[in-house]
Amino acid sequence: MKAYVYVSFKKSVLDPQGKTIQGALKKMGYKGLAEVRQGKYFEITLDGGLTRTEAEAEVTRIAHEVLTNPVIEECRVSLDE
Amino acid sequence: MKAYVYVSFKKSVLDPQGKTIQGALKKMGYKGLAEVRQGKYFEITLDGGLTRTEAEAEVTRIAHEVLTNPVIEECRVSLDE
Repeated sequence: MKAYVYVSFKKSVLDPQGKTIQGALKKMGYKGLAEVRQGKYFEITLDGGLTRTEAEAEVTRIAHEVLTNPVIEECRVSLDE
Repeated sequence: MKAYVYVSFKKSVLDPQGKTIQGALKKMGYKGLAEVRQGKYFEITLDGGLTRTEAEAEVTRIAHEVLTNPVIEECRVSLDE
């Protein structure tokens, strides 16, 4: 089973890296971009010893306790077969 | 319209950052993890001047030409309303 955790800055937090990428893309001639924001993602492969419910709980716990800084970041967890 | 680009190392490329996270999580007592890999993701907001097909083409071009290093990375693009 695989789990994916997506971590990005909260909407209220400035994302200078995203802004820089957006500026660079605009200068390079790419069109139609209103905003670019950058985040991280984690692909977690589980060893099969947990049920789906347990796995989801464990990954959500990891996402909130370790992978995300709750002051400035938010996260999203998704589970896959 | 929003587009998401997910960039990660190719399966054949070692991911020391992911390995470090996996080791740390194991030491912290989290169970059931077989592998952790880390990647980046980009959330691109489009300004509405492009049709869905044009937007998909433009974002795919950006993903392959700018956001991904094709030697060691692979990318996945998804489009949203």
